[in-house]
Amino acid sequence: MEAYLDNSATTPVCPEAVKAINHTLTNCWGNPSSLHFGGIEAADVLDRARHSIASRLSCEDDEIIFTSGGTEANNLALFGAAHAYRSRGMRIILTSIEHPSVSETANQLEKQGYDVIRLQVDREGRFDERQLFAAVNSSTSLVSIMAVNNEVGTIQNVEKARQAVRRFHAPALIHCDAVQAFGKMPLKPEALGVDLMTISAHKIHGPKGAGALYVRKGAKIAPYLFGGGQEKGRRPGTEPVPAIAGFAAAAAVLPDVRTQLAQTTQLRDYLLDCMRSLNDVVINSPADALPYVTNLSVLGVPAEVLLNFLSERNIYVSGGSACSKGHKSRVLKAMNLEEARINSAIRVSLSRYTTKAEIDYFAEGVAAAQRSILRTAKP
Amino acid sequence: MEAYLDNSATTPVCPEAVKAINHTLTNCWGNPSSLHFGGIEAADVLDRARHSIASRLSCEDDEIIFTSGGTEANNLALFGAAHAYRSRGMRIILTSIEHPSVSETANQLEKQGYDVIRLQVDREGRFDERQLFAAVNSSTSLVSIMAVNNEVGTIQNVEKARQAVRRFHAPALIHCDAVQAFGKMPLKPEALGVDLMTISAHKIHGPKGAGALYVRKGAKIAPYLFGGGQEKGRRPGTEPVPAIAGFAAAAAVLPDVRTQLAQTTQLRDYLLDCMRSLNDVVINSPADALPYVTNLSVLGVPAEVLLNFLSERNIYVSGGSACSKGHKSRVLKAMNLEEARINSAIRVSLSRYTTKAEIDYFAEGVAAAQRSILRTAKP
Repeated sequence: MEAYLDNSATTPVCPEAVKAINHTLTNCWGNPSSLHFGGIEAADVLDRARHSIASRLSCEDDEIIFTSGGTEANNLALFGAAHAYRSRGMRIILTSIEHPSVSETANQLEKQGYDVIRLQVDREGRFDERQLFAAVNSSTSLVSIMAVNNEVGTIQNVEKARQAVRRFHAPALIHCDAVQAFGKMPLKPEALGVDLMTISAHKIHGPKGAGALYVRKGAKIAPYLFGGGQEKGRRPGTEPVPAIAGFAAAAAVLPDVRTQLAQTTQLRDYLLDCMRSLNDVVINSPADALPYVTNLSVLGVPAEVLLNFLSERNIYVSGGSACSKGHKSRVLKAMNLEEARINSAIRVSLSRYTTKAEIDYFAEGVAAAQRSILRTAKP
Repeated sequence: MEAYLDNSATTPVCPEAVKAINHTLTNCWGNPSSLHFGGIEAADVLDRARHSIASRLSCEDDEIIFTSGGTEANNLALFGAAHAYRSRGMRIILTSIEHPSVSETANQLEKQGYDVIRLQVDREGRFDERQLFAAVNSSTSLVSIMAVNNEVGTIQNVEKARQAVRRFHAPALIHCDAVQAFGKMPLKPEALGVDLMTISAHKIHGPKGAGALYVRKGAKIAPYLFGGGQEKGRRPGTEPVPAIAGFAAAAAVLPDVRTQLAQTTQLRDYLLDCMRSLNDVVINSPADALPYVTNLSVLGVPAEVLLNFLSERNIYVSGGSACSKGHKSRVLKAMNLEEARINSAIRVSLSRYTTKAEIDYFAEGVAAAQRSILRTAKP
């Protein structure tokens, strides 16, 4: 038995994506910038992929810039907006629980002289809306708020950013890191009122090595990488056509978002029931979190110990995010959780392939860990 | 019949790379930053790939940073070195015929206040060594010289950079864009005396979406993208593991460089013989160019017209580079070639899969184009 419950770190690649990648590698390996037939074929693959991704976001094809992944897209969004709007304003606003590819980029912008405001979050990971409205001013060039937090699943009220920007007539672009939300909840950049949105292939059963940045028509961002004229001069470098084809294939077979969300909510509720039947397990995710992500603490069992114990039973979960590789969670600290909860916090993240049997097996694993580890600790 | 002679733009993906990518997509899809077994497996794929690429460059595994491709690696090299050495010196020296991912990045650095010197080249595309020695001073932070030019195949005397830097005690890092050289000529960064070297997968029958930057142990570069701690904090973002596995597989099956170079030289000489048998064809590449790339002009036939004519016969060559998509060659202009030669210049680029029959078919195509187009032009 095996239970892969680390789908927020990455997801198994769906067969449709594997097939599309293979087809592209074998039959459409031309350079999409080449003017001859081999290039035109590869350019067609790109065009179709762009259309497929754009239709998922209900946006125009031209509003999609392909990148090497979510991290590059987040860097392009932040640097691109900040640099393009530099003369209009140097204030940048983000939540204190953004993904490192947003928060570290903001730190770098701060070093470049930008005035970076980090919105506090409450114990459920929700950013402080009053603080947002207080922070936006006429020299604000960027507001970046993630759709769903990657460690706890909190859904942010991203729409508030547009209201705040409008109210104070700020020239700001609004960016949303939607890597954990794309394909998992209804998500339209226009409806959310955002100018820039980041999505990634490998979180939706596509391959690693492809992502995209939605850039609303009319929103200007400065390029961040320099070279050839690919992606209409906005992102140079020969496009990773096979990975992009896999991204589009994975997006095309995403199940209906609402139906899948309902099913995943049921599965998550089952997970919560299992956890409630155990002693000393507390849930760190809010009740209305996106059900794909549940953060919980098995009190008294250090996260690393629990992860190892579970891993030996082929149960794969994570402590915080994969990107922070074992460091203590910045997110849970920002949520002001108690040290004991932070030290024993793990993330259980589901996908459309997750089964009830996997949840059962995970719950048994946690119970066994409690028996084994807690008995050793307090004899 | 078909002739793909545009291998400097991109190469067909070899079956070994396709197999490795498939295996990775299906069996090693974990996130290499995850601490559990699924992640460790993926991290192993990365480690083995790193070792395979490093051994090709006779360098240490830790000296390889994986990127999304050559363009990102060139951006990281230039921005990374310039920003890290900013306090030591603002002079950057490069040749006037670098790839756009180097030259455009240098243009951007110039806008940031760097003092950029572009070395002139002669009619064979060789940079002016006296100008290099005159340009290097004690505030030089970076010298970037490509190993082989992508449009004409000129092999640069990269070693001169180390001599110049040593002579003037410059604090400079030396970067070499070796995208067109890797796997095609003996190439060791240490022997060339360079600190940074860019290579790319899709020019050696690997997939698009993976490249690498060699960074000599001890050489410091500032990161250019920000996020997680991947690649030892030097390049964040979940690594494109499938593409990297394909890159390593393609590198592992590269034939012996000298043997293949000898065979390609024979094939190129055959191409030159065929061209010499035609009237009004002049060769723009130097006699000692890397034989994989031959630039030639069919005088009187505009390049676009010839490309279309050949493409209709399934003969794929390019005018200049794929990245410049139809614009007139910067490289041939810098070489000070006559307008008539520039306007009719095409690039014929070979790979280990190229056959004599393809060369014959290409030569027939050119002859047919001359008959058809020149007859129409001058009745």
